[in-house]
Amino acid sequence: MTVTSVLDRIDADLPNALDRLQAFLRIPSISTDPAYADACDAAADWLVAELRALGAEASKRPTPGRPMVVGHLDGDGPEVLFYGHYDVQPVDPLDLWNSPPFEPELQDTPNGRVIRGRGTADDKGQLMTFVEACRNWLEEHERLPAKITFFFEGEEESGSPSLIPFLKDNADELRKELALICDTGLFNDTTPAIITSLRGMLGQEVILRGASRDLHSGSYGGPAANPIKVLSHVLAGLHDDTGGVTLPGFYDGVQVLTDRQRADWDALGFEADSFLGEVGLSMPAGERDFSALEQIWARPTCEINGIRGGYAGDGFKTVLPAEAAAKISFRLVGTQDPIAIREAFQSYVRSMLPPDMEVEFINHGASQASVMEASHPVFEQARLALTEEWQHPATFTGAGGSIPVAGYFKSILGMDSLLAGWGKDDDGLHSPNEKYDVESFHKGTRSWARVLGKLAEG
Amino acid sequence: MTVTSVLDRIDADLPNALDRLQAFLRIPSISTDPAYADACDAAADWLVAELRALGAEASKRPTPGRPMVVGHLDGDGPEVLFYGHYDVQPVDPLDLWNSPPFEPELQDTPNGRVIRGRGTADDKGQLMTFVEACRNWLEEHERLPAKITFFFEGEEESGSPSLIPFLKDNADELRKELALICDTGLFNDTTPAIITSLRGMLGQEVILRGASRDLHSGSYGGPAANPIKVLSHVLAGLHDDTGGVTLPGFYDGVQVLTDRQRADWDALGFEADSFLGEVGLSMPAGERDFSALEQIWARPTCEINGIRGGYAGDGFKTVLPAEAAAKISFRLVGTQDPIAIREAFQSYVRSMLPPDMEVEFINHGASQASVMEASHPVFEQARLALTEEWQHPATFTGAGGSIPVAGYFKSILGMDSLLAGWGKDDDGLHSPNEKYDVESFHKGTRSWARVLGKLAEG
Repeated sequence: MTVTSVLDRIDADLPNALDRLQAFLRIPSISTDPAYADACDAAADWLVAELRALGAEASKRPTPGRPMVVGHLDGDGPEVLFYGHYDVQPVDPLDLWNSPPFEPELQDTPNGRVIRGRGTADDKGQLMTFVEACRNWLEEHERLPAKITFFFEGEEESGSPSLIPFLKDNADELRKELALICDTGLFNDTTPAIITSLRGMLGQEVILRGASRDLHSGSYGGPAANPIKVLSHVLAGLHDDTGGVTLPGFYDGVQVLTDRQRADWDALGFEADSFLGEVGLSMPAGERDFSALEQIWARPTCEINGIRGGYAGDGFKTVLPAEAAAKISFRLVGTQDPIAIREAFQSYVRSMLPPDMEVEFINHGASQASVMEASHPVFEQARLALTEEWQHPATFTGAGGSIPVAGYFKSILGMDSLLAGWGKDDDGLHSPNEKYDVESFHKGTRSWARVLGKLAEG
Repeated sequence: MTVTSVLDRIDADLPNALDRLQAFLRIPSISTDPAYADACDAAADWLVAELRALGAEASKRPTPGRPMVVGHLDGDGPEVLFYGHYDVQPVDPLDLWNSPPFEPELQDTPNGRVIRGRGTADDKGQLMTFVEACRNWLEEHERLPAKITFFFEGEEESGSPSLIPFLKDNADELRKELALICDTGLFNDTTPAIITSLRGMLGQEVILRGASRDLHSGSYGGPAANPIKVLSHVLAGLHDDTGGVTLPGFYDGVQVLTDRQRADWDALGFEADSFLGEVGLSMPAGERDFSALEQIWARPTCEINGIRGGYAGDGFKTVLPAEAAAKISFRLVGTQDPIAIREAFQSYVRSMLPPDMEVEFINHGASQASVMEASHPVFEQARLALTEEWQHPATFTGAGGSIPVAGYFKSILGMDSLLAGWGKDDDGLHSPNEKYDVESFHKGTRSWARVLGKLAEG
């Protein structure tokens, strides 16, 4: 059972694999907007059909929100679970897209061939690399070198409200030796990464309300409380002059880097200038005493993700608005407790409110950071497999984004996760014109085939 | 030429006058949104036809923006100009309207009969009170006791960009002994007011730009500059702890109240509790050392009228936005210089910007406060006329809103303005469910007829 013939088959089948991916991408499975619930359902059905075509026993599992997809494929070797998510981010501002987000296109760019559209890199293109690796392995060898449970979620981009109860209700079915999660990126264009620490995330929406209706700023400006004004004071007070977050207790559980981590990360040759330069920036804007890489991988943040209030359209309207709102997220590291931070945040906001100002909080996702123990043999097998495929040493790294599911796999199922993915820094996750390099898709599929090859060697 | 028969005629003709007003209100003449340019044109045409029906020599006058309407009606007596505006505010948030904003309805409410719809009170209903007074006078007496020039603007709600050049280009045609302006309110439900000081207004839009595209707050949160965060600091820094505005030189030209003014205003019995209570508020929120009435009539303000940035729709999107923007307005008093304040504001914003943050300013209207000299005999005649109609002493007051045209009449044409109008505090100017009391419309029409009557008496 050598991997070489599987890799050849993957190369030959690439056009068909891209066709399948495009069909998947055409389904506008935006989970955060209820208007796309049917599309999420269709994406789940599409995956069930794909898994059945591989010979898996697969089904769509209802939840109070978007459905889960679970499939089991028998094989010889360790029992592993593979996780990906079929839901995607919203597409606004739509006018910044150069092509329709749900009409995926193959495009030639100065940096190579890409597939363009919402969900290409996050996460449909990524999860399909594993499915395609299994397909080609089975066509060559008929039986997999592992017992694989596929687990696809449809609410990753909207805070995963159904995930915890689903994991609890189906713990025996989903608890395996290890989870493989494909929702992350390469360290850089040539260096594959296996991520062993991920930031957690706390999402919080704040709505401030003053007068019972919008007012004329001439008739009422002065004595009437202005929610946008109050909101700006609330938001401005969240950071101090060094870029640190002011909430009491916020840094409880934040760990300092070990010398070993610092040495490993220094060896990566990360260049803040080019990382920021690619998106038109030049200077790290976060905590003053930390490098850009530390700010992303090892430090918590507080960001404002959205704000609205009053009249913000064309022209000018002298309204004194009744309401203003902001969406705020905290990235968490180490053992920071999202629930304690939520409470500290809400107390802080309440303490900032003048008379005649009411607050409503909407709680979005809350997940701790994940720090993996890389003791299962698959970690080392995967490091070898990725090093062979990319012809560059694969590294254990941190990551700035949140993959809450990795934390829940650990806390609910007692299962560690191996996070490997093929995204690139310029993929435009969550942005207009999201893309996935065809190289990512192709070499990603080959990478998973090589991981299967290592499992077959034992 | 007594006024009594004119008043009787006005009473009898009220249903027809309301029909005419409703036809006018059905035209969605929103000036700030270019999509409604044709509707503004239609509203101007409608007014031209109305004036011609009175026998005036009237025409629509093109500008680079929305057209002006000018009409001349000969008569015996002083030469006066009457000003109103046919454009209206936008209607969003549309879902807060209980009936379509451009399908005006007569409704019975606990406080009496009202006409509901955008522009009823600001300013279509008001300007029609004068037109209807002239119509009924002419039907009764054939010839007016004044030479009247009607001047209707279509850009009052969008900063009047064409007004200054139009006044300069047509100064000889428009310069009269006095202007009458009907775009203000009663002091309270029973007390008519002639306004002799009005706050000026400076409108300013700020757009902050950081990264070249929206970013994922996991991948970039920390080192990437966040425009909403910077904007919140900029806005929070505009006020100090006492509610004062921090811009250098902002209070230059702000005058303290004279003892006479303070005594007159105290005598009005203004109650901050009920004024604020009507809109769900309880405490004056402006400058700490000034009463609510002073805050509105005699003190400048800085308000945030709108803000936008990132994802503010349903659900949550962990975006680190490329752009954030706010619309800010300053209400001005005394001789505060809007141009100097605009410069101070822009310098302040620039001084607050960290690296990697660019700013664009969009300048909206800029008008000084207006302080009238009430020396023309019509001021005293109008005070008598209004006192007779409302059976309550009419008062010379201040006003918090801006009627920039009054300032331009003074600075460009050397013409003072008499500001009288029939709006009420609960009309909902600029808000959803704007209304105008039928009593305001009816007694307003009668009030102007009585003013004409005083002119006829000489």
